[in-house]
Amino acid sequence: MNPLDALLSRMGAHLSGSAIRQMGILAAGRPDLISFAPGYPDPGTFAWDDFRAIADDLLRARGADTLQYGPTRGHGPLIEAVVPRLRDRGIACTTDDILLTTGSQQAVDLVARLLVDPGDAVLVELPTFTGAIAAFRSAGAHLAGVRQQADGLDLEHLDAVLATQRAAGRRVKFLYVIPNFQNPTGGLLSRAKRRALIDWSAREGVPIVEDDPYGDLWFPDVTRPEDTRPIKADDHDGRVIYVQSTSKTLAPAFRTAWIVAAASFIARLDVAKQSADLCSSSLDQSLVHQAIERGVLDRQVPVLRETYARRRGVMVRALERRLGDVARWDPPRGGFFLWLTVPVGVDTHAILPWAVDAQVLYVPGAPFFVEPQGANTLRLAFSAASDARIDEGIARLAEVVRRAVEASAPHAHPAGS
Amino acid sequence: MNPLDALLSRMGAHLSGSAIRQMGILAAGRPDLISFAPGYPDPGTFAWDDFRAIADDLLRARGADTLQYGPTRGHGPLIEAVVPRLRDRGIACTTDDILLTTGSQQAVDLVARLLVDPGDAVLVELPTFTGAIAAFRSAGAHLAGVRQQADGLDLEHLDAVLATQRAAGRRVKFLYVIPNFQNPTGGLLSRAKRRALIDWSAREGVPIVEDDPYGDLWFPDVTRPEDTRPIKADDHDGRVIYVQSTSKTLAPAFRTAWIVAAASFIARLDVAKQSADLCSSSLDQSLVHQAIERGVLDRQVPVLRETYARRRGVMVRALERRLGDVARWDPPRGGFFLWLTVPVGVDTHAILPWAVDAQVLYVPGAPFFVEPQGANTLRLAFSAASDARIDEGIARLAEVVRRAVEASAPHAHPAGS
Repeated sequence: MNPLDALLSRMGAHLSGSAIRQMGILAAGRPDLISFAPGYPDPGTFAWDDFRAIADDLLRARGADTLQYGPTRGHGPLIEAVVPRLRDRGIACTTDDILLTTGSQQAVDLVARLLVDPGDAVLVELPTFTGAIAAFRSAGAHLAGVRQQADGLDLEHLDAVLATQRAAGRRVKFLYVIPNFQNPTGGLLSRAKRRALIDWSAREGVPIVEDDPYGDLWFPDVTRPEDTRPIKADDHDGRVIYVQSTSKTLAPAFRTAWIVAAASFIARLDVAKQSADLCSSSLDQSLVHQAIERGVLDRQVPVLRETYARRRGVMVRALERRLGDVARWDPPRGGFFLWLTVPVGVDTHAILPWAVDAQVLYVPGAPFFVEPQGANTLRLAFSAASDARIDEGIARLAEVVRRAVEASAPHAHPAGS
Repeated sequence: MNPLDALLSRMGAHLSGSAIRQMGILAAGRPDLISFAPGYPDPGTFAWDDFRAIADDLLRARGADTLQYGPTRGHGPLIEAVVPRLRDRGIACTTDDILLTTGSQQAVDLVARLLVDPGDAVLVELPTFTGAIAAFRSAGAHLAGVRQQADGLDLEHLDAVLATQRAAGRRVKFLYVIPNFQNPTGGLLSRAKRRALIDWSAREGVPIVEDDPYGDLWFPDVTRPEDTRPIKADDHDGRVIYVQSTSKTLAPAFRTAWIVAAASFIARLDVAKQSADLCSSSLDQSLVHQAIERGVLDRQVPVLRETYARRRGVMVRALERRLGDVARWDPPRGGFFLWLTVPVGVDTHAILPWAVDAQVLYVPGAPFFVEPQGANTLRLAFSAASDARIDEGIARLAEVVRRAVEASAPHAHPAGS
């Protein structure tokens, strides 16, 4: 035993790794494996030449900000460039309401550290993003799950869960939601429910943390931009903490995201970020700023919508053809993910080695739930693989699932039942 | 009041900003002001053209790793490139013993989160780096300060402080030290004391967190490389957690640092980093890797030693000429900082507005202490200003200090007494 092991904090002693990150490790170095596991954008879509030109200009100009420490709050010109873009999405804000973060994972982590004491309750969707689960648990949160319906969060269940948490004597610190093309379900929260959540937040005094990495990636054939209107756009009292990222639109490498919240809360986040990493990468923030200024992001987003909508179509058609009789799913209206439910009795975690043998990878559903459930679910990302690979990957997956259904036959029920 | 304010965690409610970061804000937009405040490297020393060539090559090659999410552990080729460099400094390690972080601030923060529960004691030097103080307090640590002598930590006082903390019923989680050209004092821990600390750590069961951002920047006229040998180099039991950064050698923008520790502890840090920011910037890590591979770092470091040694000389001579009779300091043997003690009765925080009026900036000393003391001290960074500006800045500072000495005359005593 290492001498440090005896000295761990409670958090340090109870860490558990991310299922998705572990899938990434499984996939590494197996070029024939078709991975639907990590929610990665397709590097083929990145604006490589634009970034090369921007980097060249920035490093040639030797600007005082480019390679130096930057403000904790973020690169000033980028914050200024973000304001009108947020206004276009209905969010009225000033530069004082914005903090840039090292990816939206840091945004979620800082918010949790600022609001959660050990034992406080945080409400999350069932299922929800594993990175958020990890950050909230790391802050000592008790996580309470709220069921989702086809149009998002079950509001009756939300009230029930809130009441249960309060009856147990817990302070409920916030509700965490991903309204647009949720991770992992791909679901879209209805406009009516968004409005209802604002009222609920005011009535109950529970803030909303709105994580929106996929909001720009609506599929034009089935979704209108107004369907993705942020909850934050109708927040007039500073009850919503909004998080947006460039990882799914420009590139994940730049780790550039931002939090929009009341200026007084942003000032506190600024101090918390000082002790977390002092400041995010200056070069990355300058690159992202220039990509916005030069119109790269605006040119990029419509292309991404078409690309990912097409891949969604390929995956859905392959699933209909090969698993339509045993699995079910709601067709995604945007984003990266399709959520698959297979017959009860099939354990998607247990059969993962079969999938790896068959050279296909997904993320088992259970880790996305904060309660023990979801063994017969899995998440598929259609974002990173080519059309042909998606079709072939679903063929491989279908064989694995069918084999599992047969193996569990005495106990299995159709997924639809 | 914002609705979020009523829901803050204990940490969120008790945040206080960094004095150094605030100095940065004071300095911004005043081009005539000569700032000795932030510990910034000189952008004129950065290898701009090398980074431009590297960025061009990386973005032209469209490598799978360059703009995608990277492993939480860090960019593999960079970890591999770091191992032999650490061995050259006497630290035997493998890739399993290394985690790359978003600057060394994140390294210090993650270590604190993994080891400290609220109320645990952490031992620090008096004075020490404010960023570390903030991270440890954010984890809920009780900070206990150990005095420094000309050759570093006072070992007798260390024993006394440890005994006091234990008598108070606190678990002592680690000792945090910056052995090479300490921030803020510029001091160098003697080789005898480094060896004694290893023995102390084994005897007392208290790990050492060794922060070493300045170790490469020894001044050839007064320091030999072996004087900077890391404590970690003589750690055979995994008692030392070593942190090194490229911020002071390549550029701060890249936020690229690493932790070296026992593999089992690194594995835990990996999981903690997942929830903190998922991964650091991929592009930055690739740039740093290439800068090492192409010899940029090795060409850079000797130039930096000469540059900063020369500036140290300019500052010391200016101080001797203008403040030699009222202030005292130990001449720095490396790094970025000179620690100035002015007569008792002069409050360097209170006279800061005078300094700003005189167009010169420093960091008052008190925030570097975890106990109320150091009002008559201040930190000067000689790293960022040109030779001529250093001379002019010290002239301005001398006027301010002399005025303050006169104003406090009835109470003032020479700094040396």
